[in-house]
Amino acid sequence: MNNFNSFNLKNERNLTMLVDFYELTMANGYLDSNVGDKIAYFDMFFRRVPDGGGYCVMAGVQQLIEYLSSLKFTEDDIKYLERKNLFSSKFIQYLKDFKFECDVWAVPEGNPVFPNEPLVMVKGPVIQAQFIETMVLLTVNHQTLIATKANRICKAANGRPVMEFGSRRAQGYDGAIYGARAAMIGGCSATACTIAEQMFDVPAVGTMAHSWIQLFDTEYDSFKAWAESYPNNCTLLVDTYNVLKSGIPNAIKVFDEFLKPRGIRPKGVRIDSGDITYLTKKVRVMLDDAGYEDCSIVISNSLDEHIISQVLSNGAKINAFGVGERLITAKSEPVFGGVYKLVAVEKDGEIIPKIKISENEEKITNPAFKKIYRLFDKTTDKAIADIITLRTETIDESKPLEIFNPIHTWKKKKVTNFYAKELLVPIFEKGKVVYDSPSVSEIQQFSKEEVDKLWEEVLRLKNPHTYYIDLSKDLWNLKQSLLNKYSAMYEN
Amino acid sequence: MNNFNSFNLKNERNLTMLVDFYELTMANGYLDSNVGDKIAYFDMFFRRVPDGGGYCVMAGVQQLIEYLSSLKFTEDDIKYLERKNLFSSKFIQYLKDFKFECDVWAVPEGNPVFPNEPLVMVKGPVIQAQFIETMVLLTVNHQTLIATKANRICKAANGRPVMEFGSRRAQGYDGAIYGARAAMIGGCSATACTIAEQMFDVPAVGTMAHSWIQLFDTEYDSFKAWAESYPNNCTLLVDTYNVLKSGIPNAIKVFDEFLKPRGIRPKGVRIDSGDITYLTKKVRVMLDDAGYEDCSIVISNSLDEHIISQVLSNGAKINAFGVGERLITAKSEPVFGGVYKLVAVEKDGEIIPKIKISENEEKITNPAFKKIYRLFDKTTDKAIADIITLRTETIDESKPLEIFNPIHTWKKKKVTNFYAKELLVPIFEKGKVVYDSPSVSEIQQFSKEEVDKLWEEVLRLKNPHTYYIDLSKDLWNLKQSLLNKYSAMYEN
Repeated sequence: MNNFNSFNLKNERNLTMLVDFYELTMANGYLDSNVGDKIAYFDMFFRRVPDGGGYCVMAGVQQLIEYLSSLKFTEDDIKYLERKNLFSSKFIQYLKDFKFECDVWAVPEGNPVFPNEPLVMVKGPVIQAQFIETMVLLTVNHQTLIATKANRICKAANGRPVMEFGSRRAQGYDGAIYGARAAMIGGCSATACTIAEQMFDVPAVGTMAHSWIQLFDTEYDSFKAWAESYPNNCTLLVDTYNVLKSGIPNAIKVFDEFLKPRGIRPKGVRIDSGDITYLTKKVRVMLDDAGYEDCSIVISNSLDEHIISQVLSNGAKINAFGVGERLITAKSEPVFGGVYKLVAVEKDGEIIPKIKISENEEKITNPAFKKIYRLFDKTTDKAIADIITLRTETIDESKPLEIFNPIHTWKKKKVTNFYAKELLVPIFEKGKVVYDSPSVSEIQQFSKEEVDKLWEEVLRLKNPHTYYIDLSKDLWNLKQSLLNKYSAMYEN
Repeated sequence: MNNFNSFNLKNERNLTMLVDFYELTMANGYLDSNVGDKIAYFDMFFRRVPDGGGYCVMAGVQQLIEYLSSLKFTEDDIKYLERKNLFSSKFIQYLKDFKFECDVWAVPEGNPVFPNEPLVMVKGPVIQAQFIETMVLLTVNHQTLIATKANRICKAANGRPVMEFGSRRAQGYDGAIYGARAAMIGGCSATACTIAEQMFDVPAVGTMAHSWIQLFDTEYDSFKAWAESYPNNCTLLVDTYNVLKSGIPNAIKVFDEFLKPRGIRPKGVRIDSGDITYLTKKVRVMLDDAGYEDCSIVISNSLDEHIISQVLSNGAKINAFGVGERLITAKSEPVFGGVYKLVAVEKDGEIIPKIKISENEEKITNPAFKKIYRLFDKTTDKAIADIITLRTETIDESKPLEIFNPIHTWKKKKVTNFYAKELLVPIFEKGKVVYDSPSVSEIQQFSKEEVDKLWEEVLRLKNPHTYYIDLSKDLWNLKQSLLNKYSAMYEN
């Protein structure tokens, strides 16, 4: 199932030093203060779904595994750190001997995920568990952002294929490569990013740019040349000069002259500019009248979920979408605000929960070493709620379970006829990988199934119903007691 | 001056296959149609300055050089392409024997650049000049976007250092790494991205996270531990519990007890949340009263150019800024819309200009093989205008030059007492690098000097004066004649 292959290896980089510098100053400081081997627990979570959506789509776990598996400080890294004149020789030696020892849990890729629940949990010596913060966040923030955006766009396309076309406008090379991966997880049917097919075994597609057409003396010549090279893959870009007066008539002429005699059906026409609704309605009629009812109309002009919804509701005749910059950068909201917070520390063998206070209530963290259960209705298989519990708790499926809103605690609900699934799975145990990543197409399929278990009200693009993310009674009580303790400390 | 070094090599990847798949289908098609060696000319340019600014800051040329220098199709790439069953054996052989042969020009990094002028120009066999499109765009779009955003933020900070803190929210690993590079070009004083210091010799900085403070029993203990580990680099994060009641009193106590007796001055305090204006005014007084007038106040809470302008105009007491997600993703406008267009083709030794028509007037391209001159006033050294000319033209500095608006042609201006500088420099000649990239710090310094040559009205963050980007008379006439020709072809 694991799709590590020669292309991954080709591109394998040592990204150990892709860390915020403070991870290094803290690591050295922990060692200096003799607390480096204190066992700490960190949660990675986010606080808000981008674009006002109802859920996010988890992504990035495989790259996180690749990073953590290949953590090592090279001679160059060591030399560089020594030159900074900030670090003790004990710390430098520690890095030379570095061996990753943490336990890591993650929500498997493709799962719908929600605010304030841990997507990744890390337990280990604080010097290590802290160090990996930057890359945990960078990896999961980026891919979850793009998978979520892609999922929104695919939902708007309402069953029509969406192709990811954004490489040229991505934020850096990995923005394109892992962005394409995440877009596939979110539901795209293909990508234009060739290297993504090599690395992730997802279909790469593409035909021609306007420059192909311009290079020839006439549009007709350029279409003819294409049909001769690619009779079985004949999608023509028809908007270089004038879609209705030139592009479509020339396309039909070429289909008639070069494909029809050989019994080959054309694949499609692509329109990259202009009034989509108007043009596609006209183009559909022209193609149908010429006997090409099966010729697809592909649109690729600064699209996003809102434009797609609008043109479809206006009756545009579209078979597939190519979506570029607004998907690959999640343009409408290009930041996924995942954070990585200390939630507990071991002291004399006991796990001491920690909480991060803030005047901004929504920034207060959920303390302690935890679990997430997703409750499903046994009859409908629909997801009812996620319950965050202490690690030591288990949910008894045989009894009714009372869940309640952690802020408005009078909002209660008794859940019956349910089964509970634990969301976080171990991916590292004592520094060793214990998780075999599915392929991207398997993740895509899994994601579709899991997203389909959410009620339609949660799936809505705008104003979705807020899915329940509740705390168990024990966790809620623990959190209140810590809040009260701190409040007493700083009251006027 | 070239800063290629072992860290670049460590991270060297073969990104040849990071192309939109249509670059490959077109390349194969060109060869099939016997036009692969036709000499084509492409321009990379953008149409609009993000965020309503007056200019952009060019960046990414060094990475473009690295990519073009290392273009090659590996055995894996060849096998992958053969498996697609789309490409001729002639094309596969072409890729096996691939040797880059194009001429490439670019505007050197750090230059202020403007809409509709070519930032990169490529001349070569169309099969190659087309193929490199994706990476020319991806590289220059990303870094120019971030350098431009950084420049805006640094301008708002009005001389105060701005540190780039965004890695964890970047769009992928390269988004963090090359984003840090671009941020430095745009004017940042340092970055938190450690690997960027290794790769680009720019200062990496950082101190502690909230988790450092939480790991210890008390805030005081955590500050004390820090001061003992880093007496000479003592910047304390003071907002974990309560800035005014806990953070600052504890910081001053630790400064007094552990630094003062050793004659060491503290470096600073960092505030990452809360009301910046209110808190910094109070904190400044508390530090001053304690005798720490030289202790810096560093702010790092979801900042951008607008928030920085506002808090400074409200009298906030801030010495330095750490800017994260809104810089590293250019959050307010995360896409730099550079495009790559065919502008000419050689036929029987003659250069035939090409134009891309669009119903959207601003999308019409400037045809032909060109140059850009920037005109400077000899007395003030301020930039007056950029003039795009045909490649064959030269500007005579000894005579007055009449320039005119290419749309509103009655807007004319006679320029005297000027000198003209050509902006595009050769970076590849017949496939060989002919340009030695300056270091990032040299580019930063150069950029500062060149941006300072723009009038203050162009530099404004909001509603800047539009800098003149004019066409020479010959280029303007050529463009009109092509437009008239196409217009006649499709008139009703």
